[in-house]
Amino acid sequence: MSEPRTRRHFLSALGAVAGGAAVYDAMRTMGHAAESDFTSVPSLSKPAKGASVVILGAGLAGLVSAYELTKAGYRVTILEYQKRAGGRNISVRGGDTLVEMGSAPQKIGFAPGNYINPGPWRIPYHHAGVLHYCRTLGVPLEAFVETNYNAYLHSSTHFGGKPQRYRDIAVDYAGYTSELLAKSVNRKALDAELSAGEQRDLLDAVRGVGLLNGSDRYEAGESVAFSRGYAKQPGAGVDGAPVPSALLPRSEVLGSGLWQWLAFNQTYEMQTTMFQPVGGMDQIGKAFLPHVGHLIQLGAQVSAVHQDEHGVEILYGTGKEYAEKRSLKADYCICTIPLPVLDQLEVQVSDDLKAAIGSISYHSSVKIGLEFKRRFWEQDDAIFGGISFTDQTISQISYPSHGYQSDGPATLLGGYVFGEAAMYLAGMTPEERVKLALKEGQAIHPNYQAEFSNGMALAWSRVPWTLGCCSNWSDEARQAHYKNLVRMDRRVVLAGEHASYVGCWQEGAVLSALSAIQQVNGQAHA
Amino acid sequence: MSEPRTRRHFLSALGAVAGGAAVYDAMRTMGHAAESDFTSVPSLSKPAKGASVVILGAGLAGLVSAYELTKAGYRVTILEYQKRAGGRNISVRGGDTLVEMGSAPQKIGFAPGNYINPGPWRIPYHHAGVLHYCRTLGVPLEAFVETNYNAYLHSSTHFGGKPQRYRDIAVDYAGYTSELLAKSVNRKALDAELSAGEQRDLLDAVRGVGLLNGSDRYEAGESVAFSRGYAKQPGAGVDGAPVPSALLPRSEVLGSGLWQWLAFNQTYEMQTTMFQPVGGMDQIGKAFLPHVGHLIQLGAQVSAVHQDEHGVEILYGTGKEYAEKRSLKADYCICTIPLPVLDQLEVQVSDDLKAAIGSISYHSSVKIGLEFKRRFWEQDDAIFGGISFTDQTISQISYPSHGYQSDGPATLLGGYVFGEAAMYLAGMTPEERVKLALKEGQAIHPNYQAEFSNGMALAWSRVPWTLGCCSNWSDEARQAHYKNLVRMDRRVVLAGEHASYVGCWQEGAVLSALSAIQQVNGQAHA
Repeated sequence: MSEPRTRRHFLSALGAVAGGAAVYDAMRTMGHAAESDFTSVPSLSKPAKGASVVILGAGLAGLVSAYELTKAGYRVTILEYQKRAGGRNISVRGGDTLVEMGSAPQKIGFAPGNYINPGPWRIPYHHAGVLHYCRTLGVPLEAFVETNYNAYLHSSTHFGGKPQRYRDIAVDYAGYTSELLAKSVNRKALDAELSAGEQRDLLDAVRGVGLLNGSDRYEAGESVAFSRGYAKQPGAGVDGAPVPSALLPRSEVLGSGLWQWLAFNQTYEMQTTMFQPVGGMDQIGKAFLPHVGHLIQLGAQVSAVHQDEHGVEILYGTGKEYAEKRSLKADYCICTIPLPVLDQLEVQVSDDLKAAIGSISYHSSVKIGLEFKRRFWEQDDAIFGGISFTDQTISQISYPSHGYQSDGPATLLGGYVFGEAAMYLAGMTPEERVKLALKEGQAIHPNYQAEFSNGMALAWSRVPWTLGCCSNWSDEARQAHYKNLVRMDRRVVLAGEHASYVGCWQEGAVLSALSAIQQVNGQAHA
Repeated sequence: MSEPRTRRHFLSALGAVAGGAAVYDAMRTMGHAAESDFTSVPSLSKPAKGASVVILGAGLAGLVSAYELTKAGYRVTILEYQKRAGGRNISVRGGDTLVEMGSAPQKIGFAPGNYINPGPWRIPYHHAGVLHYCRTLGVPLEAFVETNYNAYLHSSTHFGGKPQRYRDIAVDYAGYTSELLAKSVNRKALDAELSAGEQRDLLDAVRGVGLLNGSDRYEAGESVAFSRGYAKQPGAGVDGAPVPSALLPRSEVLGSGLWQWLAFNQTYEMQTTMFQPVGGMDQIGKAFLPHVGHLIQLGAQVSAVHQDEHGVEILYGTGKEYAEKRSLKADYCICTIPLPVLDQLEVQVSDDLKAAIGSISYHSSVKIGLEFKRRFWEQDDAIFGGISFTDQTISQISYPSHGYQSDGPATLLGGYVFGEAAMYLAGMTPEERVKLALKEGQAIHPNYQAEFSNGMALAWSRVPWTLGCCSNWSDEARQAHYKNLVRMDRRVVLAGEHASYVGCWQEGAVLSALSAIQQVNGQAHA
């Protein structure tokens, strides 16, 4: 099999051919969508005679809907296909079992206390809806370290394939581009754009940001070391004097494309401050259970959603292999079933909504979790949290943002893969994916395989209850189908990350739920 | 009194006149010194007949020295002036009392669980010595958020005095400078430096990093919003579509000097990942006490350090007002007393060392801690940790990197002031400093005064046991005196942050201690 196009290749190829806008589109694809318009929970008016709502799916959209509707006095039932609530809000730990279609169940072998979040794993500071529920439900948060100046950036085709510290790429990029800009100003190439005053301001800025010397040059030395670090660290004792580090060659810094990760980490969704729940992302889903857990019927496989002028009727199977057929009636239905699954069910909705359901493709993604015998990345490489990026298939290695400096085995995210490369990985067994992650990771951490303990991998395209990672809205689909998808269809309304402009993030699920309950509430009082 | 020159004025003035190198020097002054050459603890050989060492000062340098020397079999006594161990490794909490010379004692009024670190407050990832002892002694660490894209950058003279989000300055700075660089390349202003291939690579880079559009322009729109954020956030429901934010004017972005904080946060000492101990910086000092606490004599005021060929003799006062005169003999002395204090004592050392002790000036600094009734910066401004910088006297507001989203009162660092401005603040009472911090903070947070509960302030120049914040080595002093200061003088050797190239950081204290004990050990076996 030929080497797949990786995310990195994808981004670079686009950047090289089509410029920034295309890189942005690619980033949007990889980094998903966007942010949140949450300001507060909508206040619902109490329904006249306790209207009933059936919610399909106990992921975050379903849990939020149930939590708010019951508070307002609605009678709520949640039908959930899995034997657990939370949906993609999931963490896996030692002893857990993961099931993919067409593959033997994976038993997770992590040591006690270790986990991986195979679904969502970080929360931007502006995802106000998710943060609201964390606060309301008492889910403690800790900083998720996205940017780490001591992590590695790795290009197979540059620097002799040797990974570079994020710090060196960031500081050298700032230095070289600042030097070139100073040159341009000094050569009067920008006289048409910039007044004399602005030229002075710009020179001040690039000298400061680029650490230029008195000749407006970016050169190794004490000033540059103040950001770039040292070949010999400052110390104590008579031999304590430091030695500044040497620069990377400009042509390699620019040609490697590693600058893309500086831009990536500065995107709105990846900027500091980011969060993760203490103890695993699934702490959010679990925090709803004391409030709405008793409303959830687990192991319920929906086959049809019917509605008429009087209400909705849900047909579903339950029990062993979902063979016992049941039905449930309610006044309204909030359906959070992922679209690739929903598209296969019998759903009585308008042709417009049907068309919308069938028109949104889903991302593929694969996450690979690896447990090592010790935190060698901390102890040997001084990498505490953050992400090393690579142009190999695994795309990245993300180090844990918790348990810093602890002894014993620890887990990291050994690969996070989107797009074509994810389909390639989905074609492998979990064991083969782990093997690939170990082989590629070795290029970044030479002691990778020696320190390895055990691993797991999840291909979301093979997860039976989502059939993909999350919604992949094209601009065309957004134009043609978005409003039809999110608008209540008589007594049925959709929710989930796919029913929002914040696709692929938990925030989308939360906001879609708040929109859905408002629409239900509006109709219950119409 | 005229408005003092603030740190911001200082940096800007330098940047404007003297370019990047001067800005670096200023940053070095403000951000202190540098990094660490710690690789492992030196292994000491057991002294023949249990040689004795007296250590002056129970700060980190003294504690590390005692910890390692006792492990190796030395008999150790620590004399400490204060009634507590830890030195500048200190956290203050409700009920504590702070004493400055010539000022009434301050009783701290913080609510239970809240604290401020008036001394060191953050640990860079490369301070391997400090991290070693945190790990060895079981001090749990959490991420200290230095860079926060949603914090404010404030210039009194630009943007109408309105604070700007760090994100907007960072993304606009990258965008505008990238656009200008693309223009320069396209105008062939850089043909002398860059091959055709490098020009293509540079254009790819600035298009990606600067989010330039197809015409190589930096313009508001969907692509730029992907990093810069939105005027109307993306949401759910039929009206969920986002509206991109507008750009700041280029002339203001460049002219405001706010770009300096982008550079500051990228310095080696401020880069991610940074740490703080869970529960307060003083957890490090306290973690030594189960091991060496029994060796410490608190409330001992040293007046003289004598030595001859047989050993050292320390004269000190103890008891009420240090009036009871005592002496203590030992084979060797490790003296960690801050130089402005040590310079006033009777110390039998060489003229070279005496000259060194008298030649190192100390920084002044003031920290102001404020407690507010609630975390309005989180709840109203979505600022979680990180720092807002301002050109006012207070220089910065640093939000807590712990207890995110918790209810009830919380503390923040309402000012951190160096240099001339610190002397100006030191001339005020603590209450006046708090009042100033509230007044200036109001320019950043209009609800500042309304939310205020209580505050404290500490001027290190008025702390009797340090008479300053930390050592301020000039290049000239380093050249003339450093080796003399750190080299063992017969039976006396100095330690402390001042006896290192990592001045003003705890790492310097740790490394200096490791150097000191090696010198003692070497002499004990000579």
